[in-house]
Amino acid sequence: MKPNVQAAKEALSHLDIETSEAAIRSKSRDFFWYSPVLKARLDHVEADFVVSPRSEAEVIEVLRTCYAHDVPVTTRGAGTGNYGQAMPLAGGCVMHLTHMTAVKEIAPGRVVCEPGILLKDLDAACKEHSGQEIRMFSSTWATATIGGFIAGGSGGVGSCTWGSLRDLGNIIRLRVVTMEEEPRVVEFRGEELARVSHAYGTNGIITEVEMPLAPAYDWVEMFLTGDDFMEVARFAEELANEDGILIKLATVFEAPIAKDYFQRVAPHVEAGDNVIGLMVAPHSMDGFLTFLGRRPGVKLLYRSDETEWPRAPGHVFEYGWNHTTLRALKVDPAITYLQVRYGFPQHLELIEKMREALSPEVLQHLEVLKENGKVMFAGLSLVKFTTEERLDEIVRLHEEAGAMIFNPHRYTLEEGGRQSVDDRQLAFKREADPKGLLNPGKMIAWDDPDWDYAKMYAYPKMQAAE
Amino acid sequence: MKPNVQAAKEALSHLDIETSEAAIRSKSRDFFWYSPVLKARLDHVEADFVVSPRSEAEVIEVLRTCYAHDVPVTTRGAGTGNYGQAMPLAGGCVMHLTHMTAVKEIAPGRVVCEPGILLKDLDAACKEHSGQEIRMFSSTWATATIGGFIAGGSGGVGSCTWGSLRDLGNIIRLRVVTMEEEPRVVEFRGEELARVSHAYGTNGIITEVEMPLAPAYDWVEMFLTGDDFMEVARFAEELANEDGILIKLATVFEAPIAKDYFQRVAPHVEAGDNVIGLMVAPHSMDGFLTFLGRRPGVKLLYRSDETEWPRAPGHVFEYGWNHTTLRALKVDPAITYLQVRYGFPQHLELIEKMREALSPEVLQHLEVLKENGKVMFAGLSLVKFTTEERLDEIVRLHEEAGAMIFNPHRYTLEEGGRQSVDDRQLAFKREADPKGLLNPGKMIAWDDPDWDYAKMYAYPKMQAAE
Repeated sequence: MKPNVQAAKEALSHLDIETSEAAIRSKSRDFFWYSPVLKARLDHVEADFVVSPRSEAEVIEVLRTCYAHDVPVTTRGAGTGNYGQAMPLAGGCVMHLTHMTAVKEIAPGRVVCEPGILLKDLDAACKEHSGQEIRMFSSTWATATIGGFIAGGSGGVGSCTWGSLRDLGNIIRLRVVTMEEEPRVVEFRGEELARVSHAYGTNGIITEVEMPLAPAYDWVEMFLTGDDFMEVARFAEELANEDGILIKLATVFEAPIAKDYFQRVAPHVEAGDNVIGLMVAPHSMDGFLTFLGRRPGVKLLYRSDETEWPRAPGHVFEYGWNHTTLRALKVDPAITYLQVRYGFPQHLELIEKMREALSPEVLQHLEVLKENGKVMFAGLSLVKFTTEERLDEIVRLHEEAGAMIFNPHRYTLEEGGRQSVDDRQLAFKREADPKGLLNPGKMIAWDDPDWDYAKMYAYPKMQAAE
Repeated sequence: MKPNVQAAKEALSHLDIETSEAAIRSKSRDFFWYSPVLKARLDHVEADFVVSPRSEAEVIEVLRTCYAHDVPVTTRGAGTGNYGQAMPLAGGCVMHLTHMTAVKEIAPGRVVCEPGILLKDLDAACKEHSGQEIRMFSSTWATATIGGFIAGGSGGVGSCTWGSLRDLGNIIRLRVVTMEEEPRVVEFRGEELARVSHAYGTNGIITEVEMPLAPAYDWVEMFLTGDDFMEVARFAEELANEDGILIKLATVFEAPIAKDYFQRVAPHVEAGDNVIGLMVAPHSMDGFLTFLGRRPGVKLLYRSDETEWPRAPGHVFEYGWNHTTLRALKVDPAITYLQVRYGFPQHLELIEKMREALSPEVLQHLEVLKENGKVMFAGLSLVKFTTEERLDEIVRLHEEAGAMIFNPHRYTLEEGGRQSVDDRQLAFKREADPKGLLNPGKMIAWDDPDWDYAKMYAYPKMQAAE
């Protein structure tokens, strides 16, 4: 350990600091390994020490101390991100917000809490208090934190109704600590939220969040099947276009995803079955069953409030979003994925085109998403990985067809996003992290403003593999 | 009074029967007089007697008795409809459901109640019980009933989010009594709902409803102004397309509607101000103000939670939907209106075209409406009435341009709708009202299956004017 790092660690020794080597390794890794490209590059990356502050005051102390000693700080919630968001590329300090779980206020339509609370626990508190729940969550609801979702996520279960986290109104307020000689506490609302949301903790640390709430219902979770893939995709779109039927999830899995990778669903489907996963509000079930009755090409296979399978499948949303990839990976380690935007109004046409060009090497997994008031699809396509060159080729084929890729085989904000600098995030980093110590290597614009994205960015100061 | 009518009235004399002549006249009229065309034709129409049953059993008794005596029965809630829905064209019995106001069950996402409860009282009960409210209501919320809304309305405040009453999921269940020798009680869900919803009580009487609920919020009601009409219309559309900003109303009034007709708003606007009326959820206000800040062409004039005007304007939704027409009519009795559908994606283009062709004879009043998952507009245009011929010409100009008209100057279901027979409603009328005694004259398909819609339908058995 370098002397400056050692000094910072010692100065923070009265805090909750992890001492076990194994725990340090495990606590400084996220779910980057969904990507074989990131796995090859980041597998050796490890923090020098891991600290878990108990309060905003302790967060400030960690940041002040690490600033004084020039120690990088990479902040994380549960580390369930897949873009290597929370991987400490330059080592140093990994700060876990796992102790900061307080729910401070719940009111009609909103909650104020600390960032380290699990999505599941936040929902439980809101439901218990007043029958409410958060508008959207990642499929890692049971293990991920609200702060990590905001800093490293873009949307998820609920986005079929409410859109993405970046949409106006889906985050109300963030309280953020800067990393300066004397850290400041700032509060962001409105236009300012874009500075730090989905910024991987590169320009400030979120210590409190205020989020909008929706009513909590006993969602009916369902699986449905259909022979024709495009008919099944249209079913999901048309359902999401039913303004009077309240849904929280509409996911489409191309055959044979369910048969091959969903072990508790597999006994009930054939290889040729395309599958839809849904969450429908209980008071919308009559409307939904009417909708379903008009579409004989799609059959109801399972509903959580009625069907008894010998082995219950658990939450249907734990088959969607990036849990699809996780389940596939467990069966076939050669599987990885791409994150695709099929924008309105070309979405169905683009999906059909990419499927014709690439199935079964690339299997369609679609998530209904609202964007600018329109139903469209996010694709978290399953990819049978062969080489990095072929993966890049598949990315290129999507982009040439007009389907934007948020490349999950890159660890920078820009490459995982729209391949362009976010000036608001960069400007705030200049102000809030003058030494560039917050999650270094994740914002290309900070390191290399003239980067041209011709090839994958390689952070020059990354820890060397041993 | 004809002997058969007299006999029915006597047989029902133990029920709540209105005896005052003045009250009989007032209780057998609805708000048909918004239309000069209907006013000229229906002003003399009056029931022979008015009965107000206290229970489903009494409804059955009224229907059984009137069936036995061949007496027409026209059923109504508060009689706030504008298509003459509740006008007893052939006289006979008008049945008020004003006593049937029980709320029977409230659960997360749904309520079961009797049809005669006022929308306002239903909302109050749901809010008190569990912070819920109905998804949508007519602007006559304070005076209209839920049963009347379902039997005679199509949507309203809330339709910018939830779509129309006819959309799947916006009504859960209706309990209906038929008019046969021995009336039957039937329950409709799903596909069957279309038989009796928006059927003006022509084929069954609703005695219980089950409706979906949404969370009740302390909606922030606002007025905004802008110089440029199309910019203001786009503002409303773009706001409704913000998936993360929860709204319940987005209304656009062309100048000088607000200056000329909104007496409590007039002191605060100029004649050239186009005005937007909004209801935004309180936890969406930060997002909304961010949205507003990006659009310097639109200014906030009033918000219900902050602005103090010497004369408070009351609910903003009581300026929208058909309250706009009502306010204009009170100032200028020559004003009437049209109900227009500006469908996605041509909606803005069509609005611009109609405005260029017809303003200021026809002033644009737009309501944001969701249809099949898309934001579009309903127009409740204010029309300076001159002659019936010119009104028909204006209707024709809309239809030729591609804007569908739901003509509020006609008293039949078909002419006020899509000018075609609803086979489901007709089939159920054959079954449920074999003598054709329920609200006679309102379903052309029953009277004259070969009607060609070339001119306004005139019910042959209408009461003669004295």
